[in-house]
Amino acid sequence: MKQTVWHNLKLCAQGDPRHTVEDAAIAVEDGKLAWLGAVADMPAQYAPWPREDLHGAWVTPGLVDCHTHLVYAGQRADEFAQRLAGVSYEEIARQGGGIVSTVRATRAASEDALFAQSAARLEPLLAEGVTAVEIKSGYGLELAAERKMLRVARRLGDRYPVTVRTTFLGAHALPPEFAGRSGDYIDEVCEHMLPALADEGLVDAVDVFCERIGFTLEESERVFEAAARRNLPVKMHAEQLSNGGGAALAARHGALSADHLEFLDEAGVAAMKGAGSVAVLLPGAYYFIRETQLPPLDLLRRYEVPIAISTDSNPGTSPATSLLLMMNMATTLFRMTVPEVLLGVTQHAARAFGDADRHGTLATGRPADFAVWRVQSLAELAYWIGRPLCERVVRGGETVFRRNLAA
Amino acid sequence: MKQTVWHNLKLCAQGDPRHTVEDAAIAVEDGKLAWLGAVADMPAQYAPWPREDLHGAWVTPGLVDCHTHLVYAGQRADEFAQRLAGVSYEEIARQGGGIVSTVRATRAASEDALFAQSAARLEPLLAEGVTAVEIKSGYGLELAAERKMLRVARRLGDRYPVTVRTTFLGAHALPPEFAGRSGDYIDEVCEHMLPALADEGLVDAVDVFCERIGFTLEESERVFEAAARRNLPVKMHAEQLSNGGGAALAARHGALSADHLEFLDEAGVAAMKGAGSVAVLLPGAYYFIRETQLPPLDLLRRYEVPIAISTDSNPGTSPATSLLLMMNMATTLFRMTVPEVLLGVTQHAARAFGDADRHGTLATGRPADFAVWRVQSLAELAYWIGRPLCERVVRGGETVFRRNLAA
Ligand SMILES: [Zn+2]
Ligand SMILES: [Zn+2]
Repeated sequence: MKQTVWHNLKLCAQGDPRHTVEDAAIAVEDGKLAWLGAVADMPAQYAPWPREDLHGAWVTPGLVDCHTHLVYAGQRADEFAQRLAGVSYEEIARQGGGIVSTVRATRAASEDALFAQSAARLEPLLAEGVTAVEIKSGYGLELAAERKMLRVARRLGDRYPVTVRTTFLGAHALPPEFAGRSGDYIDEVCEHMLPALADEGLVDAVDVFCERIGFTLEESERVFEAAARRNLPVKMHAEQLSNGGGAALAARHGALSADHLEFLDEAGVAAMKGAGSVAVLLPGAYYFIRETQLPPLDLLRRYEVPIAISTDSNPGTSPATSLLLMMNMATTLFRMTVPEVLLGVTQHAARAFGDADRHGTLATGRPADFAVWRVQSLAELAYWIGRPLCERVVRGGETVFRRNLAA
Repeated sequence: MKQTVWHNLKLCAQGDPRHTVEDAAIAVEDGKLAWLGAVADMPAQYAPWPREDLHGAWVTPGLVDCHTHLVYAGQRADEFAQRLAGVSYEEIARQGGGIVSTVRATRAASEDALFAQSAARLEPLLAEGVTAVEIKSGYGLELAAERKMLRVARRLGDRYPVTVRTTFLGAHALPPEFAGRSGDYIDEVCEHMLPALADEGLVDAVDVFCERIGFTLEESERVFEAAARRNLPVKMHAEQLSNGGGAALAARHGALSADHLEFLDEAGVAAMKGAGSVAVLLPGAYYFIRETQLPPLDLLRRYEVPIAISTDSNPGTSPATSLLLMMNMATTLFRMTVPEVLLGVTQHAARAFGDADRHGTLATGRPADFAVWRVQSLAELAYWIGRPLCERVVRGGETVFRRNLAA
């Protein structure tokens, strides 16, 4: 039985900087939170436990990155350079660029190569206090390659100190083999790919890219129905480039979240509120594609829809591996407040992640997964741009990451 | 006599990704570059030297961050949070916030505390391959506190593996003691502060914040004349919020650089071209203050004014400690190309830094200061958002930073 009292720390147990305890302690037994609160209130039974001194650092729940496409092969930096040099999208497509190039590279990669490349992108997230990450498939677009992606996602969760939940996103884009036959591809997704991968235990949730350049409402609904037949929760890439009613459809299917949402209207917000769906905002993609339409934050606030923030880590529209930077972008670009963005990577992200009972909040009986920050004020997590602030990550009561930070 | 041949590397010696050598080697003797080029061309004399294998990594010159305000005490994260929560600038000023709070904290800090806090901000830059950094004073605004800042900047250069050049920015803002008497303060700057600090060997260059909310053209010129009496090069914060003609004035005084420049007009660009001044663009400040006026890149290109990119690291308008991220912002927000931003943190930054003979380019006889990047393509340095890419930093032939990067 391993027992530790972490002390000399400031505690933000709910991920809400408006509710904190300045001189706090955390008692951990066998990887679970036995007790946490103000030192002055600590029951006598914990007094004799071995101690770990955090020297006045802030402690938050381990962060949750609830929307990523971390697993893929290759990258698109050269295409990025070409676009900046004035080469048109059409010319890049003619050269085989765009998402098709990521699909080709991902299909061609061995599972080990895919693991190694994906691990390199996961590691910087873990060094920022992330202890739970959602990972989508969607660059295979055929059974074998989608399986390979999801297996790699599971392996990342096995090999790294992070809880991974997988999302099957077969309906990410139309694969070249099905050009002009999206209905047939949705058949394939619903009748073969999803059932097979679910049977193999590789799928925790199901996602669809619902957009003029993605799949229609009708096609999206078919995917949701296939997910329901397997009792899998759903989510949706919705309202990113236009207002298509996807979020409302997702809400009707009880979605964990609708994501992106720049073009979401009031009816969609109301539907999400009714369903309890989380609004996952992705400021990295907004920034990288130079979007100018802001997500409807005032509506989301008025309806009290929970808002999460995530990296959307992907090679085409958000090559981001820093959740802290997404917090800065959410404040700077979206004018979200500091409490909103902190809740957005903890409590609210855990709801979108689909496991709010274990993640995003520190409470007695839950896993002792927390991040230790060398900051004076929690607002610094959103304020600094590109500065390492996480000094230690504790998962299941064990220190799984440490870094020396001056001052 | 220490001799090493670094091999199995791809070389970008000028910081220009259009001119590279794919299978290259670098011979270093006693901290200086003895020879570099294609392995096939390496003279036989270097063959017996001890070897270091870089396993196919890219090598660039050590990066140069040519405009920072890294040395200060405190931070302004709580003020940042307040503004997001809707508190007005006026109310924050009434509470003692804004630059005045940084001046107060910097004046009050001991030299050791100031060093420790500043070092914590310098360290992430060094872990990104920066081997030369300019550091400005300007939060003291009185002789003793400006001296303390410049001494700390010098100490950073002594204690860390980085070349520091100091810039006296006494004319950063009007200190509260001189409210309504900016002429008197400029007297103080020119007649007492600058001469005293220059005598103490603490000043490598002189800067002025020329702006409607800063100092006038006439006041700026007086500072430049005082610098000329000491043979010190000058630079200027110019055209950030309005077009005031500062860059043209700076050019008339042969400035190393004019910096910010969002509102620069064609006459200013032509003047800079004539003087050989570098245009230092600061995308972090553009981003953080949500500026919408873009710097005149087409004009700068047409006149072939060298363009540098820097962090502007400071607590009020750019709390940034990542030069790679500034490269990403310069491409994403300013539509600069990959060659432009790479030159902007190497060769061109070294000119603005004031020591292009030693920094920003790798050539025989120069110091062996280089950065080693675990990337396939140099474009990745601008493409990724918040991803550690620097595997090793070599300064004077010695490895001064290392990190294991997967893939
Ligand atoms: Zn996505
Ligand atoms: Zn500045």
